[in-house]
This record gives sequence, C-alpha cells and structure tokens, in this order.
Amino acid sequence: MREIRFEVDYIKNPAGSCLACFGDTRVICTATIEGTVPPFLEGKGSGWLTAEYAMLPGSTGGGRKRRDGTKRDGRGVEISRLIGRSLRAAVDLSALGETSIIIDCDVLQADGGTRTAAISGGWVALYRALQTLARLQEKSGPEAYLLGQVAAVSVGYVENQLICDLDYFHDSRAAVDMNVVMRDTSLVEVQGTGEKNVFEREALNRLLDAAEEGIAGIRAAQLKALGGA
Amino acid sequence: MREIRFEVDYIKNPAGSCLACFGDTRVICTATIEGTVPPFLEGKGSGWLTAEYAMLPGSTGGGRKRRDGTKRDGRGVEISRLIGRSLRAAVDLSALGETSIIIDCDVLQADGGTRTAAISGGWVALYRALQTLARLQEKSGPEAYLLGQVAAVSVGYVENQLICDLDYFHDSRAAVDMNVVMRDTSLVEVQGTGEKNVFEREALNRLLDAAEEGIAGIRAAQLKALGGA
Amino acid sequence: MREIRFEVDYIKNPAGSCLACFGDTRVICTATIEGTVPPFLEGKGSGWLTAEYAMLPGSTGGGRKRRDGTKRDGRGVEISRLIGRSLRAAVDLSALGETSIIIDCDVLQADGGTRTAAISGGWVALYRALQTLARLQEKSGPEAYLLGQVAAVSVGYVENQLICDLDYFHDSRAAVDMNVVMRDTSLVEVQGTGEKNVFEREALNRLLDAAEEGIAGIRAAQLKALGGA
Amino acid sequence: MREIRFEVDYIKNPAGSCLACFGDTRVICTATIEGTVPPFLEGKGSGWLTAEYAMLPGSTGGGRKRRDGTKRDGRGVEISRLIGRSLRAAVDLSALGETSIIIDCDVLQADGGTRTAAISGGWVALYRALQTLARLQEKSGPEAYLLGQVAAVSVGYVENQLICDLDYFHDSRAAVDMNVVMRDTSLVEVQGTGEKNVFEREALNRLLDAAEEGIAGIRAAQLKALGGA
Amino acid sequence: MREIRFEVDYIKNPAGSCLACFGDTRVICTATIEGTVPPFLEGKGSGWLTAEYAMLPGSTGGGRKRRDGTKRDGRGVEISRLIGRSLRAAVDLSALGETSIIIDCDVLQADGGTRTAAISGGWVALYRALQTLARLQEKSGPEAYLLGQVAAVSVGYVENQLICDLDYFHDSRAAVDMNVVMRDTSLVEVQGTGEKNVFEREALNRLLDAAEEGIAGIRAAQLKALGGA
Amino acid sequence: MREIRFEVDYIKNPAGSCLACFGDTRVICTATIEGTVPPFLEGKGSGWLTAEYAMLPGSTGGGRKRRDGTKRDGRGVEISRLIGRSLRAAVDLSALGETSIIIDCDVLQADGGTRTAAISGGWVALYRALQTLARLQEKSGPEAYLLGQVAAVSVGYVENQLICDLDYFHDSRAAVDMNVVMRDTSLVEVQGTGEKNVFEREALNRLLDAAEEGIAGIRAAQLKALGGA
Repeated sequence: MREIRFEVDYIKNPAGSCLACFGDTRVICTATIEGTVPPFLEGKGSGWLTAEYAMLPGSTGGGRKRRDGTKRDGRGVEISRLIGRSLRAAVDLSALGETSIIIDCDVLQADGGTRTAAISGGWVALYRALQTLARLQEKSGPEAYLLGQVAAVSVGYVENQLICDLDYFHDSRAAVDMNVVMRDTSLVEVQGTGEKNVFEREALNRLLDAAEEGIAGIRAAQLKALGGA
Repeated sequence: MREIRFEVDYIKNPAGSCLACFGDTRVICTATIEGTVPPFLEGKGSGWLTAEYAMLPGSTGGGRKRRDGTKRDGRGVEISRLIGRSLRAAVDLSALGETSIIIDCDVLQADGGTRTAAISGGWVALYRALQTLARLQEKSGPEAYLLGQVAAVSVGYVENQLICDLDYFHDSRAAVDMNVVMRDTSLVEVQGTGEKNVFEREALNRLLDAAEEGIAGIRAAQLKALGGA
Repeated sequence: MREIRFEVDYIKNPAGSCLACFGDTRVICTATIEGTVPPFLEGKGSGWLTAEYAMLPGSTGGGRKRRDGTKRDGRGVEISRLIGRSLRAAVDLSALGETSIIIDCDVLQADGGTRTAAISGGWVALYRALQTLARLQEKSGPEAYLLGQVAAVSVGYVENQLICDLDYFHDSRAAVDMNVVMRDTSLVEVQGTGEKNVFEREALNRLLDAAEEGIAGIRAAQLKALGGA
Repeated sequence: MREIRFEVDYIKNPAGSCLACFGDTRVICTATIEGTVPPFLEGKGSGWLTAEYAMLPGSTGGGRKRRDGTKRDGRGVEISRLIGRSLRAAVDLSALGETSIIIDCDVLQADGGTRTAAISGGWVALYRALQTLARLQEKSGPEAYLLGQVAAVSVGYVENQLICDLDYFHDSRAAVDMNVVMRDTSLVEVQGTGEKNVFEREALNRLLDAAEEGIAGIRAAQLKALGGA
Repeated sequence: MREIRFEVDYIKNPAGSCLACFGDTRVICTATIEGTVPPFLEGKGSGWLTAEYAMLPGSTGGGRKRRDGTKRDGRGVEISRLIGRSLRAAVDLSALGETSIIIDCDVLQADGGTRTAAISGGWVALYRALQTLARLQEKSGPEAYLLGQVAAVSVGYVENQLICDLDYFHDSRAAVDMNVVMRDTSLVEVQGTGEKNVFEREALNRLLDAAEEGIAGIRAAQLKALGGA
Repeated sequence: MREIRFEVDYIKNPAGSCLACFGDTRVICTATIEGTVPPFLEGKGSGWLTAEYAMLPGSTGGGRKRRDGTKRDGRGVEISRLIGRSLRAAVDLSALGETSIIIDCDVLQADGGTRTAAISGGWVALYRALQTLARLQEKSGPEAYLLGQVAAVSVGYVENQLICDLDYFHDSRAAVDMNVVMRDTSLVEVQGTGEKNVFEREALNRLLDAAEEGIAGIRAAQLKALGGA
C-alpha cells in the first residue's frame, strides 16, 4: 500500500477540512454546514448529507480535464453519489435537526484511487464539522451524531497479482477493480467491476480480505490525523 | 421471483428492440447502430457501446418524474453508466469496426428492479442488433461479436428475509440491496449497498448465491424470447 | 384511414393513462394531477393544464432521435404547446381549483400523425384523470370539469389525392398537410401548411370536410375505449 | 387596420434589414448570409433558410421579458419555426447553392401581431439579402431565387366583430384568433385557434376573406418600401 | 468626437427608455422597476440595480452574432457587470426600499463604444425610471434617489494619436484602449488595457484628460435630451 | 504587504504549475499545452492563450461557493478574461505556432487578492510551460516566446489609508479598489473602481505609485521561486 496521510484543517474557512494523500493522489475534502434541507425533507426534522466530487483541470495525466459546464461529467456524478451514500452511513441524520452537511472533494492531483481517498478524507472533514456542529448545537461532541468511522480502499488484480490501493499505473491495467467502503468493521458499499474481464466468486472473496486489511490501516491514519480522537 | 418476460422486436424501427417485464416493471430497450465512434476511439479500428436510461414522467408512483433538461438526474446518469459497462462485457468491441451501438432503456412503468430489467432486456435488444449488424457486415452471425450472455438481478434482505428480484415495496424496505450482473456464470459487476444499514461478509455471500440462481432463470427467459437462439 | 385504437389504463401509476395507436404509430399518454399551479395563476382559484411531448430515441425510422438535453428540440416544443392548447379547450379550468393536470405524450413508435394521436389519446387519459379528480374533490363525475370531447386528425393532399390520417410514407410526400383539432363538432385549432407548396381556399375546404369525417370516427373509438362513458 | 410601414436598410451591417411597424408594434428584421448549411444538407447542393424570433426585455407591457438562457421560451421557439416555414416558401432553396440565410426578428416594442410583422418584415429583409446574394453570385437579380412575395396578418373575432391586424388590446380579448400567411394570392400557412372558445367553419371562412384583403395592403406597403421593386 | 444623441422614451412600455447614438453605434437602453430584490438583500430594506447587455444578431460587421443560449458570451457578461457597477454609483440604493431596477442595453448597431454608449444611455433611462418611481412612491422627484450624473467614454491611442470616442475602425487599431466612467466630475471606474501593447503612466494621464473633456460633452447631451432636467 | 510566496511545480501532471500564496490567499495555477487553436485562429499560424478562474466550494468565508453549472458565475467570467488578457501580454503568440496554452487558476483559500495572485502565479506556471514547450519545439528556451514578466497587485484606500495587497478584511472596507497589472515596468491593465464611492485623479496617481512598488516585490518573489531564472 502507498503512504496514506490526512492533513486536518487544511483550509480555514469551512466547518471541517482535510487534505487526503494516497501516494501521489491528493484530494481536498471540505465539509460545510447549512441550515436548510432539500425540499423532500422540509418539515420532517431530519438532516441531510450530500457530496460533490470534481477534478481540477490540471490534476490528471491524460491532458487537461475540462470543467463541468452545462454538461456534467457522468463519472463525476457517479462518484459524487457514492461518496454521499458512504458518508451518510456515518451519521445519524435524524440527530442533525434540519441541517445539511455538504462534502466537497476536489482532486488536486490524480494518481488512482481518487474516490477512495475522497471518501476517507471526507470522513475526516466530516468529523471536524460535527465537532463544530456539536459546539453550535451545544451537544457533548461529534458522538452525538456519529454512527462510526468510514473509510474506503480500492483493490484489484493486475496480471494475477492482488494489489491494495491501486495507483494509476496499476488501475489502468487491472483485470478486476473493486471499491470497498466500510464503517468500522462492517461493509457499507461494495462495487466490483470487471469491465474488460469477468471474475469469479473466489477472486471476489480474496479482494474483500485484502480490502478489510487495507481499510484497517486507513482507519489508523484517520485517527492519528485527528489526534487520536 | 416475479414473472420475467421479454417481448422481442417490440419497436420496429431500431436494429434491435425488446420490452422487458419483471413483474409490473416494464422497460423498453432499443439498440441503434451508428457508423461513427466517440472522438477518443477515432482511427483506432475499434467500436463502442454506450447506454442511456430514463424514466417516463408517468412511470413512477411517487408523483410525476420530471424530464431531464439542463440538469440531468444523477441517479439516471449512474444507472446509464452501469448498463453501458455491463453490456460492453458482452461484446468484443474490436470486432465491431468503427461502429457504435447505443442501448436506450426507457422505463414505462417502475415497480423496482428497473436497472436489472434494463440490463437483461438491453442484452436481448443488443443480440437482435448484432444479428442485423452481422447481415450488414456479412459476418456469420452475432457470435462474431458476442462474448457471452449478460443478465442482471437485484437481491436484498428485507426484515431478515432474503428476496431475489425486489419489487418497489420490498426495495424501499430493504436493509441491504445488491445488484449483480453476470456474463454466463461469471461476475461482471457487483454493487452492494447498505445505505441505511451496514452488512457483513456472510450476508454478502448468501445474496450472491441467490443472485446466481435468479440470473439462471433470467438467462432462460432471454433465450426463450429469442427462440432458443 | 388507419386502424385507431386506445388502450385505457395502460400505465398503473398516473391518475389517467392510455396507449393511443393510429396504425403503427403508438403514443403513451399519461395525465398527472398536481396540487399546485404555475406562478401566474397562484391565488386566483383557477387550475391549469399543460402538456409535454417527446419521442423515444428508438421510435423513429431516420436514425436515433437524440434526447433533449440542454438544447430542446424545437419541433417537440411546438407540438407540446399545440397539445396543451387543444386539451385546455376540453376543460373548465376555473372548476379545477388550484390544481394542475400535466399530460405527457411519449412516442414509442412513430409512423406519421404522432401529434394527432397524442391529442386524441391525451383526451382519453385526461378523461380518466378527471374521474380520479372527481372522486378526490367529491364531485359528481368528470362532467363537473369537462367542456367536451377533443380529438384530432391530420389530412393532406398527396399527388392530388386527399388522404385522412397520413402515415409517414404519405406525410413525407404531402403537398399540403393540415392538422385539425375539434371539440365535439366545432373547431379548436386548424394548422395548415404547404411548406413545399402553396394551396388555395378550395383545397382547404375539402381538407376540412375530410377532417370532420375522420374525427367522428376517432371520437367513436375514444368512447368505445372508455366503455361508452 | 393599423398603419403598416417598413423601413428598409434600418441596420447597416447585415445583407438585408428592415424595421417593420404595424401600429405601435416594431420589429427589427435582419437577414444574414452564411456560406455553410446545416449537417443534414451538407453535400446536397441545396441551401437553407432559418429564422429566430425574440423579444427585447423592455418590449412588452406586462413586466420585463426575461432573456432566453438555458431555458428557451416555448412561445419564441414556436414563432421562430413559423417564420422559418413561411419564408422558406418564398425561396427556391436549390437555387441558393450551399448557402444559408438566417432571418433574425427582434421585437423592440410589442403591441399585438409581432409574428405577422416579423414574417412581413422578414420578407423585406430577405429580398434585400437576395439582392446582395445575386451580386455575389453574379445572378441577374433576386428573381433568380425568389418564388413570390410573402406577407402575413392576424385576424380575429372580438365581441362578435371581425378585426384585421389585432393590437394587444384586441388580441387579448379575441374569441378566435387566426394567423394567415400568403405567398402572392395563395395560402402558405393558416393557424386558427380558439383557445378560450371553439369556432365554426363559417367564421373560419369570413376570417380568411378578411385576411386576404389585409394581406393585399401589406404587400403594397412592402413593395412601396422596396421602391416599387 | 462623433455626434452623440439620446432619444428619450424611445420604447413606451418600460419605466424609462432611451436610444443612445454615438456615431453609427445605436443602443436601446430600458429601465424596468420590479418590486423584489435579490435573495442577499431580502429583508434589509435596501434596493438594487443590475444591468444586462447584449448585441442583436445583425448588429455587428464581422458576421452574425450568435444569441446567448446555454453558454453565455463572456464579453457580454463582463460588460453587463461594468454597466451595473457604473449605474449603481448614480443611485442611493438605500433610498429605493426593496425595489430593483434592471437596465437592459441592447445593441442595434455596433460601431465601437457600445459599452460607453450603454452606460451613458442607461443613465438617461434610469433617470426617467426614477421619475416614474418618485411618482409611485410619492417622493419629490428623482433627486430623492439620485447621487449624480453618470456618463462614460472610450479613449485610446491609434498610431500615436489620442482619440476620444473610438469607432470600430479606430478601436480595432488602438494600441491602448481605456474606458472611463465618471459621476459628475469624479471617477467611478477606469479600465485601461493594452492587450497588444503595454503603456506608461504619462499616456494614462493624457487619456484621462481627454476622457474628462469628452464626458463633459456627453453630460451636456444627456441633459439636453432630458429637457434640461 | 502580506507575505508573497510561489511554490513551483506544485502539481506534477501539467506542463507548468505553481501554488501562489498572498498571505492566507492560496491559488493553484496550472498551465496546459494543447496542439489546437480556437476556430478564429485556425490556419493562421499563430497561437493562443486563455485562462479560467474558479473558486473551490470551501474556499471562501461567506458560506459555501456553489460550483458553476448551467449558469456561470459572472464574477468568475470577468476575472478569467482579465487573467487571459494579462498573460497574453507576456507571450509572443505568433512564436507559438498553432498551439494553445490554457491557464487554470483555482482558489483553494480566499482572503482577498485572488485575481492578482492568480495573474502573478499564472505567470510562473506559464514560464514553466514555456520551458516545456521550448524543449518540445527545440527552441533555445522560454525567451523564444516570452515578452516580459507579468505580475499584478491590488491597491486601495481604506479609511483614507493607502493599502497595497488588500486582504478580505480591508478589501470589503475599501472606498476605492484598483487592480494593476504590469509587464516589467510598464502597465498592461488598470482597473479602478469606487463602487461605493467616487474618486479623484490624485488618489488614482497615489494608488498607481504604490502598485508599482508592490509589483516590484512580487516580481522578485516570482524570480526567486524560479531559481533566479
């Protein structure tokens, strides 16, 4: 696995922020608190969490990434939704009151695993934002809202070798690629795809074993960055 | 499992078409052949397959579904990408030449499982389009392009009971929900999510067992509709 | 004239629905009831009816029809407005209260006359929705809102021959093409165009004679589908 | 009828231009020549004519008209298409070669009849542009392309009185409203609508009689503005 | 300097309007009053002024100017913002109450200096709108809101010669180009650019001298048009 | 003045990159080389330089900054154009051949002066990209394209005190605010605005004096970051 590092409070303005580094992959994660909820939740007393993922134009190696304009990049939409679902699993939305938390994940430099860095770093930014919210709402601490610690990793088979936390070189050569999101030691989301190849149950099981181990390491890095919180 | 049925050649104009019915869920799948490829493939001699998924405004129970305009519905984008990845696993793109196949999946009536009905019905429409293409390109038959038979099913746990091919009633009550796509007897894509709950490896394995069984039935229905092709 | 058929309640979720078949032309018409009105009517106690028309990507013979995105198809906008005006002539908007009815017309298969099939089938879906609304608002029946029976047909001259209900083959060869909408035995809208040719008053009159006759037959098919309602 | 006036060459830059005044209604019509055709005509040797209609934000009495942005105004789309069809009837497109003419009609001040002023003024701008094109293509004159003289008028019944060229006051009170476009003494397009009322064949015929007479006067004003061309 | 002329009340519907002519450059300026303010000012008791600038498709010499659609023209956005800032300097926003004034500047014919004609003509339309507003709000007159008289001019060096109010011929040849906006005899905004060349402080000072003189002439023309107001 | 610092090669993928820090303001500037030019330059043998400016959602103190979607933020458009004009003054476009350079400036943290940090950091990224281009085109070095060193600073009066390089606290209190862009010791662009106040020539001159001095310091920091290049 590559070196994993989280720089907490990387940006001063939002309620929570973090720079997530998975090897050369660097993602800025910020968490903003807003005092409104989407229309479908108005008047229900519950809160919401949503996420947006984007890549800076210079972040990627295959030429400049055009900014989203009238036409949104489908891959970015799909990843935004995955981050949102993953981090909603970390929060008791009903405890928030009519409050929204928006997680923004902007990729400064892409070298594989941007979505799993975004989820893992997003959880750190979220944790800081829940600390802020607890002060505002006069709660004991982030535990008042938090259901667990969410982290994610990618795993895959490259030339019959199992690799955890794939960089771009490996990711583009992987026969099977799986993103695994866990809350503590349980699964939140599993997305395995073999676009260029199909895969068997046995491979799936070994990938999950590796992911569980990798995520344990990421969880430790998250806690270390938060000062053993 | 609900009754599964495919009406081949439901629409006369496209190269292939099919109405996929999973219980009360009804999805029109059409396959169009175009003689161009996206810019990133121009001059490389290979073909492409892409998919678009949408719901008719009156298809759903929770009020009218607004049409996509300047803002595309994120869920639709995510499902379109899943259908595209799943059906690309069925085709040898390099055998197509500089030809694109567009699979359109439009939901007439939604009652759970629209994405798995779209993938399964999309494969039937694709098969018919490959028959058309084989005639145009003077190939022996669809086998000249086809890598296998793709089908998909949703599985989930509702109140601790394992259900295969969830309708809307069960889907909205599921603790864990998984969409499984297979090519013949191998996995193409696995997407498991426990948005409201986390889940364990054991549950994952039992869901996959059920999905394998369910997909065997769908494969039989596809072949029956194609006349034992 | 081609065979004209209306399948009532084709889709289960909306307040009213109908599959309109004019020969090979098939249009799904659904009517949804919403408890709000557009801003220009708020607080005036009156209701509204609007329509949207679209073609499925695989519905047409001349290659795939691209979906509306940031740029709407002008022809679709024009037809949506025609359907809306035509069906507003069928309803006493002031009797609805602050209620909107949205008529969605989606073309499954296009073979000429899609706009007249949409208007005629839209009226059937509207009738069913007004039955639903009457129950909700505890009125005697749809007659509480209904001003009459609306139906439409296309007529034209193809090689000096007058044809009623043109299919695509005839439509694309017509020197003059007219769409006529009637409420019972009076005119609601007349749109005659001779894009490739001009035409004279005499031709106009003969086309209107034929349209009146054709619409009488469509009215009979509407009533038959509604069970002699 | 209101005073009808055309100021030729009102704007110096385009190939043709005209300010059309129908009473207080004032519309700037310009005709631009471009050396390309839409994709569907490329390589076919034929030309094209298209039109765009818009209202300036301050042109109308009922509050500021918002500019078209990501969402185009449906009424404007419908009128743009009517102007395009009407003026295409004036030109032998095959004589143009692969040349497009774009007619822009921008309403400075709206007081009813903007679409008929736009068609009638659009023809004057078109005539001037065809003179320019004839010089460029070394043809004898605009007659090399022109099929006839196109003009349009609105007619309607207001409190049982037949009015030709309705201003806003009458237009908003009309029971039946019809726009008639003629090329010389033949019909190009007839659009009659009784949104708030239905109407009978007899009324239709009397409206057409009045329109024929009104258009004769507009044709005279067009020719006078062009210097008896 | 070219001939400068303002035609007050050129359009009858808006609260204020003016046709500004700087040589062959002609811009319609209208001022509309609306009883709402943007969200960031709601409930603060203050008003707002904003501006929109656009060119008619046939206004310019270098081929047809495409209308703004889903993609707005960047130059138009920049000029709209300049007009808004300039005219906000003329008004005591807090005196307006929760009222917005929208200044629309539409270029009929472009021959250089459209933005300075728009600002200068926009002030005349604004003055008329403030007269209207004073009547509505029962104030003594436009002085209740007005902080001063705003006018603008462009100045530049063309082949080492200083020119005030550049037409298109000169503008496209200018080494340095500066737009100066003044309120009475003080500066509101100075925008100097030497895109193709750099420039020195001395040139800047001479351009400002010329601009002050030119603006004095424009102020006189504004007052004359308003009847010595 | 605040501490000014440039971190060269902050992002590894683009041809040139730089993190510009003006106090707490941090902007990532990247320069990408593309082998095509905009349509208006095709076949003319000249190159182009354009810029895009955006703020990350969490960068600013006044709540989350919404991402650009179908509606672009006008302020961002205006600043993008200013950066583009400023940096085009640094490059001999005709020496580039048919090559485009795109400068992307993304604000990580905003504390006043983001546009001047973007221009100054953009020049550093541009310098690195020209070094890359010189290698690709086998030129002697960036001097083959470079016309000079471009830097920018904001200056303003806050409570009658002249401040150079305003942070957000001062910027939001400034009576007059001016952005000055220089190439070496000459002016490229001057934008002074007194939205809330007007200002006099004397103030303008003192602001320019201060800007010249401030820019000298920024130029030194740029060269230091480039290793005395």
